[in-house]
Amino acid sequence: MDKQHLRWNGWGLLDAPDVLGGNAEGIWAWLGDHFNLGTLPKTPAVPLAQLSLPESRLSAEHLKALAAVMSKERVSTDARERAYHARGRSYHDLLYLRAGRLETAPDAVVYPANAGEAQALVEYAVANAVALIPYGGGSSVVGGVTPLLAAGQCAAVTVDMALMNRVLEINKTDMVAHIEAGIYGPALEKQLQAAGVTLGHYPQSFEYSTLGGWIASRGAGHQSNKYGKAEDWFVAANLATPKGAWRTETFPKSAAGPLLRDLVPGSEGVFGIITDAWARIHELPKKKEYRAFFFQDFESGVNAARTLLQQGVSTAMVRLSDANETFFYSVMHGGAEVAENGPIGFCLMLIGFEGNPEHVTRNSERACDILGEHGGADMGAGLGETWLQTRFETPYLRDPMLDRGLGVDTLETAVNWERLPQLHADVCDVLEKAIATNTPPPATRSIVMAHLSHSYRDGASLYFTFVFPRDLNNEVTQWLNIKKAASDAIIAGGGTISHHHGVGTDHRPWMTQEKGATACSLLRAIKTQVDPANVLNPNKMLP
Amino acid sequence: MDKQHLRWNGWGLLDAPDVLGGNAEGIWAWLGDHFNLGTLPKTPAVPLAQLSLPESRLSAEHLKALAAVMSKERVSTDARERAYHARGRSYHDLLYLRAGRLETAPDAVVYPANAGEAQALVEYAVANAVALIPYGGGSSVVGGVTPLLAAGQCAAVTVDMALMNRVLEINKTDMVAHIEAGIYGPALEKQLQAAGVTLGHYPQSFEYSTLGGWIASRGAGHQSNKYGKAEDWFVAANLATPKGAWRTETFPKSAAGPLLRDLVPGSEGVFGIITDAWARIHELPKKKEYRAFFFQDFESGVNAARTLLQQGVSTAMVRLSDANETFFYSVMHGGAEVAENGPIGFCLMLIGFEGNPEHVTRNSERACDILGEHGGADMGAGLGETWLQTRFETPYLRDPMLDRGLGVDTLETAVNWERLPQLHADVCDVLEKAIATNTPPPATRSIVMAHLSHSYRDGASLYFTFVFPRDLNNEVTQWLNIKKAASDAIIAGGGTISHHHGVGTDHRPWMTQEKGATACSLLRAIKTQVDPANVLNPNKMLP
Repeated sequence: MDKQHLRWNGWGLLDAPDVLGGNAEGIWAWLGDHFNLGTLPKTPAVPLAQLSLPESRLSAEHLKALAAVMSKERVSTDARERAYHARGRSYHDLLYLRAGRLETAPDAVVYPANAGEAQALVEYAVANAVALIPYGGGSSVVGGVTPLLAAGQCAAVTVDMALMNRVLEINKTDMVAHIEAGIYGPALEKQLQAAGVTLGHYPQSFEYSTLGGWIASRGAGHQSNKYGKAEDWFVAANLATPKGAWRTETFPKSAAGPLLRDLVPGSEGVFGIITDAWARIHELPKKKEYRAFFFQDFESGVNAARTLLQQGVSTAMVRLSDANETFFYSVMHGGAEVAENGPIGFCLMLIGFEGNPEHVTRNSERACDILGEHGGADMGAGLGETWLQTRFETPYLRDPMLDRGLGVDTLETAVNWERLPQLHADVCDVLEKAIATNTPPPATRSIVMAHLSHSYRDGASLYFTFVFPRDLNNEVTQWLNIKKAASDAIIAGGGTISHHHGVGTDHRPWMTQEKGATACSLLRAIKTQVDPANVLNPNKMLP
Repeated sequence: MDKQHLRWNGWGLLDAPDVLGGNAEGIWAWLGDHFNLGTLPKTPAVPLAQLSLPESRLSAEHLKALAAVMSKERVSTDARERAYHARGRSYHDLLYLRAGRLETAPDAVVYPANAGEAQALVEYAVANAVALIPYGGGSSVVGGVTPLLAAGQCAAVTVDMALMNRVLEINKTDMVAHIEAGIYGPALEKQLQAAGVTLGHYPQSFEYSTLGGWIASRGAGHQSNKYGKAEDWFVAANLATPKGAWRTETFPKSAAGPLLRDLVPGSEGVFGIITDAWARIHELPKKKEYRAFFFQDFESGVNAARTLLQQGVSTAMVRLSDANETFFYSVMHGGAEVAENGPIGFCLMLIGFEGNPEHVTRNSERACDILGEHGGADMGAGLGETWLQTRFETPYLRDPMLDRGLGVDTLETAVNWERLPQLHADVCDVLEKAIATNTPPPATRSIVMAHLSHSYRDGASLYFTFVFPRDLNNEVTQWLNIKKAASDAIIAGGGTISHHHGVGTDHRPWMTQEKGATACSLLRAIKTQVDPANVLNPNKMLP
């Protein structure tokens, strides 16, 4: 992954795809009107050349000790490297990066080449009271890779795993692959698919995130209904820890007490650096079918999705947008003239099937029947195929919004079916109110929308997106207030603070409320046991 | 569950089914011949009336404190109660129980009626340095319910959960049921099925084991391919712990760090007493189909099972016996004349499908095709249906064998597909050799057999049964030596020390080798955090 072609303070490629195309001007005008802003302001990011980074706190001695761990050219104190790794890629992060606030830049970025070097780095960190920040693609949207120090630490070193990018073994008897943690999505799938198999894990961040990051954050790909969430396809890992190398259990199943490997998905680097892992793989699907359905209201679509799951219809993906999201993306794709008649009220469901042709056809037919019974109108394959082809472009919408005084953020949860409709309504309502309260008049309107995107027999995830006019003088406080209101509503509604984004720094305040005091004390006990000096990603995840 | 009708020193009902029927005499003669014993010796168990139990170590003060926790009639120091709860139901346990060695009898047996009483009991135990032994059905075969003391403890109290046996809620929207932990299998399924749903968890111990025990031991039912192993259908639990009530996460999925609920399945009572739990339920299947196939050799059957799993054929059960087991059960069901021509060489696979008729038919047809391609001969439904009807009788074979100088034990593992055939061969070989070495001549022969019974995309379980002449003067040492040899072979072959029996006392010696030092230190840290006084089931599970 050549980071020279990537934005250090935004999403993805410097040379970004033109998502809005010829519709851009009309859409900006429509948004300006919608938010009562008139013409949107120009709020460009501060360019790197105008910035000065804090000096690296690593002394010559520290750097010498690092050089004993790995060769010098893989230890960088270069300004762009440090700026690139100063934060993840959340809206919250971008507020800092775009303002040129680089006080969290790591004091060095290091690139271990193998598990031995990762282990030596951990030992170096303990010996030198240095914080280590395990880093995959850096696409965290919860503050998971911000270099922070624990009390008594002198410096932070980001451990970029990008050089540990080999597929070590593809075992087609066990349908398990052994892979180094630093491999990016496209490189991994290219090698697996050349061997006729796939992991099938395509998160929104796929192009700029890594296997290790997916596991550490307990991520989910678009097709998790078929291929599983990270904790489902994760089999085992090797981790570098202050207590030495830790190789988890590798068995398909076991009753030898609790499986400690279950502590790895979601560990966010605080228990060890994942150096390599074993993951369940699948034969490349011979057929993919993606279709669209329209529902008159969100709840009908939710009931339809629930029925699909509980009736055992085998889907790769069920993605149900609420009316606001359906409308918003209609405008983004179709231009401002689509908005003229106002919201259309119905809800789009994209549903996908992958596998051999017989499997796809049979499940698609069953699904069509069930969705029809729930009032879904079959819109054919067009919208589904378009989504499949353009799905990695959506994150590119954020940077041009940020350039125009707008804020856009997402948050997500999972909840039981029974509570899902109420939680959806409550969080949307709370977001609208919090934005209105925290944005100076007259620009107090917002766009709040959601979709259901990962479903289970007992519940599903809900993913909220909100677009709002930034309070340009208080943009961090504005965001913190909105975030707090929405997070409180999620917990009150019986949802988890995150279904697949993770905890990082941003969700820590809700961990105790969510898990309870006993569970939190166990998490801390595990941390204290494996990393008593707290060198591994301090101030993340743990309550 | 009225324990007056159950054996305190053997399996199940006092009034046991007559498993061998008219074939019994011929079968005993055949076994006597096979083992070079001639007529099998008479080795009856010592009856309870002839035994004297160690005096209860609970002082009058202790009992008074207990009476403050729960009403007196639910605190028992009755001899049969104490004898009944002195051990689980492993072969190892029965050697002690049948010899009248009741030194592990608990000092009292208590029956909490609700979660509050369970919590008060835990607090009582901490305050009084008493060991608490959480107890479901007591069917542990790994020493999981033996009342043992930690250093400094004065007495052991077994906490029999049988009164906490209510189905609290059946939620058909979420397809989750909330159930008290002490409910036995038949009572649970009766209530669920009356509401049109099922948990589908039918372990061999189904009739005499409980929901809490299934979770605590990480058990598996016969139809785990459809309904999941305990850790799969387990959603959440409430536990009574020394740090207070612990309610785990309840979400369908979450990325809020590792889920601490994953520590509950397999916890074997050492982290808390499971008082009630939420479990995933299914619609009652409208159709069940069980069929038999014969394979020329075990490896062909294994490859066929693997293909079924990896091709996504939806089975409820795939159970493949090796040639020895196929032969042995042919003799047990058909009588000694079946044995006259000697082993027949082929391997029986029982395969089951459950669901709606269309689902069953389609998957059965696909399975028949795949099994046929792997050389499987379709024997129709007869053997499968017979197995389904008589499956809970097999454990009753053990007591009459023990009455006749024979030993019989089982052990099990799970391993990746690639290693499975070699591990099968190695463990059988090691068992035969260990039995020959540890049994006085001329009775050095054994019957060693195995089946594959729970399968996954990446591997499967193997379940070994071995029958052998007891060394009547050294029967515990004989067993320990055989057990050690087999367990070492399992670990050496890449298997887990248990797929669904658990750890208890018997598998503890292999935990460190299996999980590694780092993982074991984490398990101990969790224990120290939640139960620093080690009152909960001391000397179990933890390495």
